[in-house]
Amino acid sequence: MHSMTTSIRVRYAETDQMSGVSNERYLEYFEVGRAELIRSLGMSYRDFEAAGFHLPVTEAYLKYIRQVKYDDVIEVVAAVKEPPKARLRIDYEIFRGKEKMTEGYTVHSFIDAKTGRPVRAPQMFLNLLDGKS
Amino acid sequence: MHSMTTSIRVRYAETDQMSGVSNERYLEYFEVGRAELIRSLGMSYRDFEAAGFHLPVTEAYLKYIRQVKYDDVIEVVAAVKEPPKARLRIDYEIFRGKEKMTEGYTVHSFIDAKTGRPVRAPQMFLNLLDGKS
Amino acid sequence: MHSMTTSIRVRYAETDQMSGVSNERYLEYFEVGRAELIRSLGMSYRDFEAAGFHLPVTEAYLKYIRQVKYDDVIEVVAAVKEPPKARLRIDYEIFRGKEKMTEGYTVHSFIDAKTGRPVRAPQMFLNLLDGKS
Amino acid sequence: MHSMTTSIRVRYAETDQMSGVSNERYLEYFEVGRAELIRSLGMSYRDFEAAGFHLPVTEAYLKYIRQVKYDDVIEVVAAVKEPPKARLRIDYEIFRGKEKMTEGYTVHSFIDAKTGRPVRAPQMFLNLLDGKS
Repeated sequence: MHSMTTSIRVRYAETDQMSGVSNERYLEYFEVGRAELIRSLGMSYRDFEAAGFHLPVTEAYLKYIRQVKYDDVIEVVAAVKEPPKARLRIDYEIFRGKEKMTEGYTVHSFIDAKTGRPVRAPQMFLNLLDGKS
Repeated sequence: MHSMTTSIRVRYAETDQMSGVSNERYLEYFEVGRAELIRSLGMSYRDFEAAGFHLPVTEAYLKYIRQVKYDDVIEVVAAVKEPPKARLRIDYEIFRGKEKMTEGYTVHSFIDAKTGRPVRAPQMFLNLLDGKS
Repeated sequence: MHSMTTSIRVRYAETDQMSGVSNERYLEYFEVGRAELIRSLGMSYRDFEAAGFHLPVTEAYLKYIRQVKYDDVIEVVAAVKEPPKARLRIDYEIFRGKEKMTEGYTVHSFIDAKTGRPVRAPQMFLNLLDGKS
Repeated sequence: MHSMTTSIRVRYAETDQMSGVSNERYLEYFEVGRAELIRSLGMSYRDFEAAGFHLPVTEAYLKYIRQVKYDDVIEVVAAVKEPPKARLRIDYEIFRGKEKMTEGYTVHSFIDAKTGRPVRAPQMFLNLLDGKS
């Protein structure tokens, strides 16, 4: 299992008139956590795209536990718990201090950018997870 | 069961560099579908807030089946399948023509805006669902 | 001069905790107005991109006069007042009923998508403005 | 004159299919720069709102010079060049390394949150700018 924690300060533009973060913006926090998780394995998602792959989201689940507020500093914990086959699942927890605010997951397929077709997890990516990069 | 279909044309700002709609923006499409579903029952969500309630999202699930593209006109079908008790669940399907592009659901709690506390589904809202408004 | 008016209903996700539309979202309304203006000339912006051009924003100005609110239906008037040479300027006014809420403009360059270089306004585009398409 | 520099890493959600940051998202970068500028004076914008004021944007101007890309780390320089009277103007420059990518400004009014009316710049805010807080 690999996990990575990333801090984010909430922007005003991320709130809505219910006075907390708008529900769709949490998926951006998940994205930031995911990008830093992949970077921590030794390769940026930008490089992964440059190598000819996309990693689109095929499923997403979010549970909103407490309302994150403007200017809060939150910690996004992103984790890969199992090696991917056709699909990669990433789990997320968002904390403000010790309070869990949000949890959820995303599922991703590996796409060959040239053909637009799904492929199995590239060996390059599996090596990163194995610490062989 | 109540359902409502709403058309949306995809904005450029909703795309990302993977050349389709960015994953978090589908939650905005769900929101538009939900707002029109509530309006079709006889009350706008704005009026619902003016009556002292909030309906925050407590859970969301999305399955991304096909990639929606810039300038596509999509149909969002939002449906309430069961009368709410403490929670209201709304199901969504997004179509482009006859192709299903996305599906998912959101779960909502009813919040008394003054106290910030969850309450049972207001009678006013249940009456709308019963067609008694 | 060409102008086009487009109606938009404000989404909850477009608000922020100041209880009106978030300042950056007005640029999305400008974009919607611009897309419908171009379509009204006889060609969609999607087709324009398919023909090998991009029309990126090089400057934008916004004057926020009155606060647009959730669920408001606004009218975006987008207008081309002068034929473009190297640059295209589009002017916008946003109304709610008879009240002017916002005004502004965007300036665009014409980019050859293959080379990434700026080019003069394509004849195809000038013909549309001349009504010769 | 006061100025503050803030680093931001570009999110995937901030791009559009033109393969760079979407034009409206730069206003979010301005907002982040502005929030850190105000914090650097000795008070967060959150505290400023808690003290009963809003600082809405009344005008915004952006000049897009070079395209910021996904995963770029940019520096937002926000500056107050003159003490505000009825209006506060903030200037911005966005850099990637030594390259200037974007520049612009926002103008703000001071609003009494209770009445919704514009007021002169609060003494509290002027003191921060004078370094007397």
